[in-house]
Amino acid sequence: MKQISGGVTAAKGFSANGMSAGIKKSGKPDLALIYADKPASAAAVFTKNSVKAAPVLVCQKNIRGGKIQALVVNSGNANCFTGHFGMIYARQTTEVFGKLLNVRPSQILVASTGIIGRPLPFENIKRNAPALVDGLSAKGGIKVAEAIMTTDLALKEIAVEVMIAGKKVVIGGCAKGSGMIQPNMATMLGFVTTDANITPVMLKAALKEATDQSFNCITVDGCMSTNDMVSVMASGLAGHPLIAKKDKHYEAFVKALHHVCMDLAMKIVLDGEGATKLIEVRVKGAKTIKQAKAASMSVANSNLVKTAAYGDNPNWGRVAAAVGSLGIKSISEKTLKLNFDLTEKHVKIYLDLNQGNESAVAYTCDLTEEYVKINGKYN
Amino acid sequence: MKQISGGVTAAKGFSANGMSAGIKKSGKPDLALIYADKPASAAAVFTKNSVKAAPVLVCQKNIRGGKIQALVVNSGNANCFTGHFGMIYARQTTEVFGKLLNVRPSQILVASTGIIGRPLPFENIKRNAPALVDGLSAKGGIKVAEAIMTTDLALKEIAVEVMIAGKKVVIGGCAKGSGMIQPNMATMLGFVTTDANITPVMLKAALKEATDQSFNCITVDGCMSTNDMVSVMASGLAGHPLIAKKDKHYEAFVKALHHVCMDLAMKIVLDGEGATKLIEVRVKGAKTIKQAKAASMSVANSNLVKTAAYGDNPNWGRVAAAVGSLGIKSISEKTLKLNFDLTEKHVKIYLDLNQGNESAVAYTCDLTEEYVKINGKYN
Repeated sequence: MKQISGGVTAAKGFSANGMSAGIKKSGKPDLALIYADKPASAAAVFTKNSVKAAPVLVCQKNIRGGKIQALVVNSGNANCFTGHFGMIYARQTTEVFGKLLNVRPSQILVASTGIIGRPLPFENIKRNAPALVDGLSAKGGIKVAEAIMTTDLALKEIAVEVMIAGKKVVIGGCAKGSGMIQPNMATMLGFVTTDANITPVMLKAALKEATDQSFNCITVDGCMSTNDMVSVMASGLAGHPLIAKKDKHYEAFVKALHHVCMDLAMKIVLDGEGATKLIEVRVKGAKTIKQAKAASMSVANSNLVKTAAYGDNPNWGRVAAAVGSLGIKSISEKTLKLNFDLTEKHVKIYLDLNQGNESAVAYTCDLTEEYVKINGKYN
Repeated sequence: MKQISGGVTAAKGFSANGMSAGIKKSGKPDLALIYADKPASAAAVFTKNSVKAAPVLVCQKNIRGGKIQALVVNSGNANCFTGHFGMIYARQTTEVFGKLLNVRPSQILVASTGIIGRPLPFENIKRNAPALVDGLSAKGGIKVAEAIMTTDLALKEIAVEVMIAGKKVVIGGCAKGSGMIQPNMATMLGFVTTDANITPVMLKAALKEATDQSFNCITVDGCMSTNDMVSVMASGLAGHPLIAKKDKHYEAFVKALHHVCMDLAMKIVLDGEGATKLIEVRVKGAKTIKQAKAASMSVANSNLVKTAAYGDNPNWGRVAAAVGSLGIKSISEKTLKLNFDLTEKHVKIYLDLNQGNESAVAYTCDLTEEYVKINGKYN
């Protein structure tokens, strides 16, 4: 596997564009489109928050068909808690672009990120849709990465190349997010495209594996968004035999997809609101994977662990208390082993629960005065 | 019910003392004793953290007898994660005071709060024990309240008077705690005494009722301590008939006990590290009490809700996301109703889940730069 330049248009068969549609007051780019030349195998994962934004509900329906040809995303407004009109606007977005692109609305995904509870300025989207479509380009990937940024300080994209059955396969993607929820803004979004030749069912399995070990291992503030979504579209143009079962080609694809997801996930954590350090919590010796994940996340979400990391304090009392707070009776002072590895920008916490053989890792950033400022004084 | 002055020595049958034993580097008071003239009916509740400090383990054993005559507490050291010697020192503390007071060691409670993971300076406790006992006084309650303070800015005590079966009953108490866990320090502690005449079984039931609706409804940072404990001792000297079942006298006692616990709990939240505001999360319309509590705590523990409150922002998007993050499928944008009531020092959040008829309330404080400073830069 080798890293190459580019993002969502690095793979064959995709074009993209991004622009300022006046949704953000700042006038920065806020509307983007990813387009596949033909309907692509597609899969997506969504927030588990029961309060879901309108675009998430539309996507959950449209992804069932397994084929997607376009993805429209806006920043500056989350289209969440926007009632009946929120759903209408999300659907009309698929209709407007469906007509312009000659694509079925049911094969279009929509995503939104920004302020919760304000009506989506749908007229801005509708008015700018033709120009957005006109500007589609095989070099437009970076414009998507730009247009989805909210409080992000850094643009987040990556592409890799991997050999599958003797053919060069490209996977590229972009993401946004710097708190799980921003100042009244929602969301972590990740969009991945590939020219791999793979069935929607296998693509879904691959995405689940890849996100479970990447996006689902990160936390900035323990807060779950209403708009989170990661999607992948596969054009099939790489030319290798169809991946239709969990064989070695599937494994090679998952490995590369995981690399892309992990890279984007790390970029999100490192861009965490106010963050100065990456915190890595490695748990081993858990009885079950669920227990390992719960322990790693309990430590990663502890404000006291995060402030201690900020202050360069290897405070194992706080780590032990965070694990103990899960209330697992067999975990006590006697069974718990822990170690720290501190450098200026990276705090590693190693935990051995001595309950079994399962392990998990969670990534987070430190909690700083700046996080409080960003999220408290944003008016 | 009427509020009176005093704390743990307001009720008949109790004396107390506090002093500087050199456990804290600052030289501030750090050792205290509460003594009952005769073995008192007693009950206690403890942290649910599976990593429990040595004194908690000793208390859990001693409280089973239902009779306690003395309570020794130190601040400056949590005696947690202190291995074999931690247990030995906790037990020897009961033995040293048992001999001095002519009380069975099994009828003595011990509590510690302070730094985790450093050996308890037991010699300081042993050396100062005789002076502590000598100074016992019916006016010594305030010395206990002083000696248990760690990062607390305010002393926390209260006493009330209530009529039960025509007799005047006094309940008084003190508490400490300003984060659930302090900078490498552990703990919320609450000590209550009363001259009510009540069996240990009824006292335990009353304490559970009172703490469920007070201490268990507060959170400063969502972090659960290894040393938390609330105890109550009843001398029986008020002279009313023994409360041995859940009759109207029991109800009157619970009501007053709850008042004392609630007052101390609110004092803890208001003294939360870096806090500038009280946040009250009132949930109604829940399907079960468990659901109501989970929803209120999810909101109260959301860093984004807490920073929004700090910044005077009625950010209902964050509140909705916090409730939604519980993943209860029937709770969505359509079912959730919420309202804010903001004053300078008090933010009330009203939530109607529209799932049933149960309700709960949680109390917390805002999250400020000062919290990060206290917990990050404490070296």
